[in-house]
Amino acid sequence: MRANGTGRRGLMLVLSSPSGAGKTTLSRALLAEEPELTMSVSVTTRPPRPGEVDGRDYRFITDAEFDSLVQSGALLEWARVFGHRYGTPRAPVERALAQGRDVLFDIDWQGTQQLKAAARDDLVSIFILPPSMGELRRRLECRAQDPPDVIAGRMARAAAEISHWPEYDYVLVNDRVEDCLADIRAILKAERLRRPRQPGLVDFVRALAP
Amino acid sequence: MRANGTGRRGLMLVLSSPSGAGKTTLSRALLAEEPELTMSVSVTTRPPRPGEVDGRDYRFITDAEFDSLVQSGALLEWARVFGHRYGTPRAPVERALAQGRDVLFDIDWQGTQQLKAAARDDLVSIFILPPSMGELRRRLECRAQDPPDVIAGRMARAAAEISHWPEYDYVLVNDRVEDCLADIRAILKAERLRRPRQPGLVDFVRALAP
Repeated sequence: MRANGTGRRGLMLVLSSPSGAGKTTLSRALLAEEPELTMSVSVTTRPPRPGEVDGRDYRFITDAEFDSLVQSGALLEWARVFGHRYGTPRAPVERALAQGRDVLFDIDWQGTQQLKAAARDDLVSIFILPPSMGELRRRLECRAQDPPDVIAGRMARAAAEISHWPEYDYVLVNDRVEDCLADIRAILKAERLRRPRQPGLVDFVRALAP
Repeated sequence: MRANGTGRRGLMLVLSSPSGAGKTTLSRALLAEEPELTMSVSVTTRPPRPGEVDGRDYRFITDAEFDSLVQSGALLEWARVFGHRYGTPRAPVERALAQGRDVLFDIDWQGTQQLKAAARDDLVSIFILPPSMGELRRRLECRAQDPPDVIAGRMARAAAEISHWPEYDYVLVNDRVEDCLADIRAILKAERLRRPRQPGLVDFVRALAP
């Protein structure tokens, strides 16, 4: 157990993977199980897909609104993907971390690189690999949300995204969702126990052995 | 799950704590549960305590034998404690790591500092704190192996040992053994998933997205 729950600073947990590697399923399960974990909801200029909920999956905003967020420095990171822009609002992240809550980010390699540059020691990054490209294609086709040319584009982009795995702290293969989820929970549990993430230790030890 | 079990290099897991913080109980439980984990058995010049088994708890050797190990460079680290010497034989550790097995070390801050200097990125260090000094004293008295003056000496030494907690990667409070054990297992699971500890990833990704 940790020495002291109070005074803990939250960590930033990044999950990146090619589309179809199971990241959304993993994120939802993780959020349901981890009360100290909160999701960073990205803003995007792309239109919602079927089933996506504004404010849960993304905040869907206009190009002008996005410009304004960029210009005022309100985004921790942003990137352009397939002609649309995606970004992470800064304020909710800073607030959660200061309250000792961890923040989960579902972002790509571009966003991760920018967060890394900004986030000092708070960032923990995980890359999720599919067990095979055939399995990845199968998962993308099963979603049945996208026309074939979009799936072909996503397969090409998957290879490009995968090429960035060496930039991550941890790399997992999502063969079985339950195993992968257990891996992520172990990483989260361990990272919370790192000495620099337990500022309460100084007082605890001072009281223990004055 | 990891990308590839073969080719993995083992890690060195150091558990340090003041005597009586429960480290021996934790080590034994961990070894029983983790087939990929093997114990580093230290050599020592001190006489066995009741119940200690040569080759399991320590290898009990003479001063002359210890001198010879030091002079031939056969020890990864060694330290003098209470007038006796303790050391870690190098060969079994190197062998286990090369086979992809992790090695558990039950050593103090002096040994940890020396291992750190020698072990590059292979070392993961955990410091176990007792929940209170009263609880520590109670545990030392319950063992009933040592006379009161030895217990007093151990309490003083406990405070000195505790002062080295800031040199460790992780710090745990051993309030309940089951919780502490779950913490250590999470750390071990997470550290095995770190990218640099999975050399098989390079080939896995090459086959995935050539």
